[in-house]
Amino acid sequence: MQNDTYLAHKLQKALDHDNFETREGLKTLFKDSLFVPRYSIPINEERKLALQRLKKIVDKKLISIMDFERNPSRIFTAHEIVGQMDGSAATKMTVQFNLFGGTLLNLGNNALHKQKLKDIDSLKSVGCFGLTELGYGNNAAEMQTTATYNPLTKEFTLNTPNTLSRKYWITNGALHAHYCIVFAKLIINNEDEGIHAFLVPIRDKNLKIKEGVSIWDMGHKIGINGIDNASIGFNNVKISKDALLGNTSSINEKGKFESTIIKKRDRFLYVADRLLSGRLCIASMMIGASKYTLDIAINYANKRLAVGKKGKSDNAIFNFQLYQRSIMPMLAKTFCYNLALNYIKDVFANKIKATKTEKIILCCGAKAVLAWHNERVASLCRERSGGQGYLSANRMGEAIFGSHSGITAEGDNAVLMQKVSKELLGLEKNKSLTILGHYLYNKIPSFFKQSLVGIKFNKKLKNSIQLKLLKFKKDTILSTLAIDLKNVRSKGATIYEEWMYNQSDEIQLLAKSYFDYKVLSICDKYQKNAHKDIQPLIKDIKTLYFLSTMETNMSWYLTNGVLSRNEAKRITKLSKKYCKTISQKALLICKAFGIPDHMKLAPMYNDIESFNSFDNRGELIKESRNW
Amino acid sequence: MQNDTYLAHKLQKALDHDNFETREGLKTLFKDSLFVPRYSIPINEERKLALQRLKKIVDKKLISIMDFERNPSRIFTAHEIVGQMDGSAATKMTVQFNLFGGTLLNLGNNALHKQKLKDIDSLKSVGCFGLTELGYGNNAAEMQTTATYNPLTKEFTLNTPNTLSRKYWITNGALHAHYCIVFAKLIINNEDEGIHAFLVPIRDKNLKIKEGVSIWDMGHKIGINGIDNASIGFNNVKISKDALLGNTSSINEKGKFESTIIKKRDRFLYVADRLLSGRLCIASMMIGASKYTLDIAINYANKRLAVGKKGKSDNAIFNFQLYQRSIMPMLAKTFCYNLALNYIKDVFANKIKATKTEKIILCCGAKAVLAWHNERVASLCRERSGGQGYLSANRMGEAIFGSHSGITAEGDNAVLMQKVSKELLGLEKNKSLTILGHYLYNKIPSFFKQSLVGIKFNKKLKNSIQLKLLKFKKDTILSTLAIDLKNVRSKGATIYEEWMYNQSDEIQLLAKSYFDYKVLSICDKYQKNAHKDIQPLIKDIKTLYFLSTMETNMSWYLTNGVLSRNEAKRITKLSKKYCKTISQKALLICKAFGIPDHMKLAPMYNDIESFNSFDNRGELIKESRNW
Repeated sequence: MQNDTYLAHKLQKALDHDNFETREGLKTLFKDSLFVPRYSIPINEERKLALQRLKKIVDKKLISIMDFERNPSRIFTAHEIVGQMDGSAATKMTVQFNLFGGTLLNLGNNALHKQKLKDIDSLKSVGCFGLTELGYGNNAAEMQTTATYNPLTKEFTLNTPNTLSRKYWITNGALHAHYCIVFAKLIINNEDEGIHAFLVPIRDKNLKIKEGVSIWDMGHKIGINGIDNASIGFNNVKISKDALLGNTSSINEKGKFESTIIKKRDRFLYVADRLLSGRLCIASMMIGASKYTLDIAINYANKRLAVGKKGKSDNAIFNFQLYQRSIMPMLAKTFCYNLALNYIKDVFANKIKATKTEKIILCCGAKAVLAWHNERVASLCRERSGGQGYLSANRMGEAIFGSHSGITAEGDNAVLMQKVSKELLGLEKNKSLTILGHYLYNKIPSFFKQSLVGIKFNKKLKNSIQLKLLKFKKDTILSTLAIDLKNVRSKGATIYEEWMYNQSDEIQLLAKSYFDYKVLSICDKYQKNAHKDIQPLIKDIKTLYFLSTMETNMSWYLTNGVLSRNEAKRITKLSKKYCKTISQKALLICKAFGIPDHMKLAPMYNDIESFNSFDNRGELIKESRNW
Repeated sequence: MQNDTYLAHKLQKALDHDNFETREGLKTLFKDSLFVPRYSIPINEERKLALQRLKKIVDKKLISIMDFERNPSRIFTAHEIVGQMDGSAATKMTVQFNLFGGTLLNLGNNALHKQKLKDIDSLKSVGCFGLTELGYGNNAAEMQTTATYNPLTKEFTLNTPNTLSRKYWITNGALHAHYCIVFAKLIINNEDEGIHAFLVPIRDKNLKIKEGVSIWDMGHKIGINGIDNASIGFNNVKISKDALLGNTSSINEKGKFESTIIKKRDRFLYVADRLLSGRLCIASMMIGASKYTLDIAINYANKRLAVGKKGKSDNAIFNFQLYQRSIMPMLAKTFCYNLALNYIKDVFANKIKATKTEKIILCCGAKAVLAWHNERVASLCRERSGGQGYLSANRMGEAIFGSHSGITAEGDNAVLMQKVSKELLGLEKNKSLTILGHYLYNKIPSFFKQSLVGIKFNKKLKNSIQLKLLKFKKDTILSTLAIDLKNVRSKGATIYEEWMYNQSDEIQLLAKSYFDYKVLSICDKYQKNAHKDIQPLIKDIKTLYFLSTMETNMSWYLTNGVLSRNEAKRITKLSKKYCKTISQKALLICKAFGIPDHMKLAPMYNDIESFNSFDNRGELIKESRNW
């Protein structure tokens, strides 16, 4: 037991990785009864609560926009921990600090902007991010809101010409925001100069809505209802020239538009830059939720009795293979994704060198893969927890709905995966067809067998083979897709058609395969440098991650002749074995997730018997029972 | 267009299958504004609404417990349609009419019981079903509630000795039920005679709770909050001898217990019989929800514009392969599962001959497979609908949470699949090892190639090959598992250990494979006898169902040497082709789901632009906007 505590502590340090004090600060703060979850409360209560909680967090200075300059990982870490306690507060925080605050920090270039900056940390100024429009959610570059410059008054006139161009889904917009960073086409001298960002006051200090601004509450959502999402319209609202954000575009003394960025598309990408860090904020919330959900579910499964050998209820469901085969791969993946996210946070913070393209690939991939993963973790944990998982008080539902939000917010997962693949292909574009051809699938078996000479699964599952197998899949799909696309071009067909109508499976699989491989290679390196006491355990976890990835992709390996039928069977057999191995360490791994008991108020984590020994009405605190 | 309307009408008749008037009656009733969905309302409003809606349905006599005797399919049909409108009302209905009413109808054997029967249809008597106990949800046979007979007073004393034995999750219990059918161990002369069912009044006419009964509201759930679930305890409540249900067990004049059923386990199964029809009720709700969700999502995807060739928003997302590969297999499966459910309903109603075991296999399988399927349909449709899918008003959330309820209610899906496999194995148990051995996996390739002589995928994908491929998998897994279990026994190890610790994947796969095959064979027969005008379309749908099933199980076919690498590639290619083929008929198929516009109030089905042109607060009716 001493040993387990020691190992859990070591593992936790590996997972927590950075900003230990901030983590501890947040966890300590969550002892405050304000953070006890409440369920059957009206939507306006839920929203008030989310703001109050966020206020407590900022009052303790546990997050600051200045972190982006000195310690960006701290922002992501805060998202992970706050997300475990209240997804709504975390989402309000991500808009306030990353989308709103981060944009202002990066692009604020004059006195007006800088003055607003200082009130962000304290929530004295609450902001929102007006990018998405109802009609252009999947094609922001086509947005219709305009900011037309009037050289006489030196003002912009902000206008949403129709319903489809209203800003939509704007977090913090319905109730709490004083400012909105509005994205609009900058029109000057009847010329459209592309999308720019403007700092626009939408409410005064007393939260009275400014003239010309119409704000409609979007109402009830399938989850995280503590967020006040709005539809916002601007009816010829005048804003000062100073409202224009960024130092790349400006209007000179003569009223002429100037920009250091030539392409309109690039001007848009410049101002929408915070979406990238936003994706790491979401990825952090997702990993936090996965750890939280698994911790509760696995602890419950260890106590929940079902039919034993003699028909009595004396065997914990955790012991059953059905449970282990469903949940242990999720546990191993969560652990490995966490190590990978730590690495990606370091890349973002420039602690690890990477090109801009590599950063984009990693941030987009992490957001997509971790959100999808969290959806599966939450759904499977709910299912394997039976009826208890269906009670709101046990918090599986929040994880399901939260993951759905993560899947499509700040870029639809599948579209981000397209972006990842596009960038990966871009890195290959200078290679000749001959080089790419090496990987062509009709040459795979012999090529592959050469590179794996003498190494067989029935011997040892070496790290190097694991890596080779995942890398080989990624490389092959990448090359095949590259060749197919090159051929299309040479045939005079369009890449657009090939991309959208014919290669969708391959595009998605490429991005996934890249991320699968990248995660394994990050974990591999991590393990090698880890403290020797935890190396064997990390190795086992990583191996189950690998085996589970192989099982998911088994038909690819078989169809492409990489694995023989016997090797495939061996992998399945090994995977079953490792599910058992990891199950023996599952509680230890959950402990390493470092979530203190006072944050795990779910009755099924604690004691469903005592929770159900009185008229609880499904609530944890008395005040919520009085509906 | 005329042609499409004609075909849709024909297809709808195939899907609707029975009780056309009841379907129409319900659909017409749903024009009543009471059925307009409301979202941000307090939980007690939601529950009141569910009861009011159910009351309207019964007032129109659109369901009756007598249907079980004359037309059981009508009950299931009502579940399908009511579930599309309000999952909570449908769940309250299933407890009132199937679990409570159906049990009373089947087991009511004296004047007391018969008198109550007549008030069920009108809801004058509302009932609930007290089977599950907090501590014994997965092992009801171990329940602790007792009904102890006192020969002096000729009464039973009903008692829940502790928290774990409180009746739990009892629908209709928290607010509306007058009666509870309580399952308890019958104790007489200090002998436990096994679990029996008792008709117990828990509230009087004015809904005042009876003495000794404690009812606690379970509060907020992750979905279908219109249901009033309760935890119910009995503190030495006296009930008359007449309360005992069923005519198999009785207490004679001398106060001696008698039963025509010898085994205690069988006495329990006798009284818990309604779980079987209950599973068809759930399966019906699930198929209704899948059709509803797909109809809304597919229609929206046909209107939702995204980036086209030139960067403008002028191409509907429905046209993209990403969309079609995700949603078209779901559409085809839903269609085929619906035909299969129609068949199973006929089996239940004895219109098609089947043994009791076959009935159990089909009902358990249908509930599990359709609930899992609905979860995938709802989650994928939500995801592919982006932000709109996240608004409660678009109803994707209800389908997700509803499916989660379906997955573990009235038997955890995975446990039901274990039951299916157990029954399938039971049917094989008299076969010798030699016969079973024919299928042994190391003999598969030659055996299989023999049976498929000369038939190749690159020629034509005949119906008979499709059937053979699915049947072969089922037979092989069945035989392999049977042999493995026989060997375990002969080695002196226990079946329990092998079943719970080693063969879980195989057990689950067997049940799924059986159902996959059964669905295809039902659809195959249906197609052959269908009107010639719809035969080609049904064939295409069925083929996509088959191809999608093959893709899911591809690694099995490859690992077991049934398919060559080229055949596997051919299947994937064909599946892509059929996704395209079916996409061209997708709106027609949705139309055949027969859901009238007044039931599809989701803004994304209708017109998101006009819905968002005013301050809707996420609600469809004005009354709900005033929070």
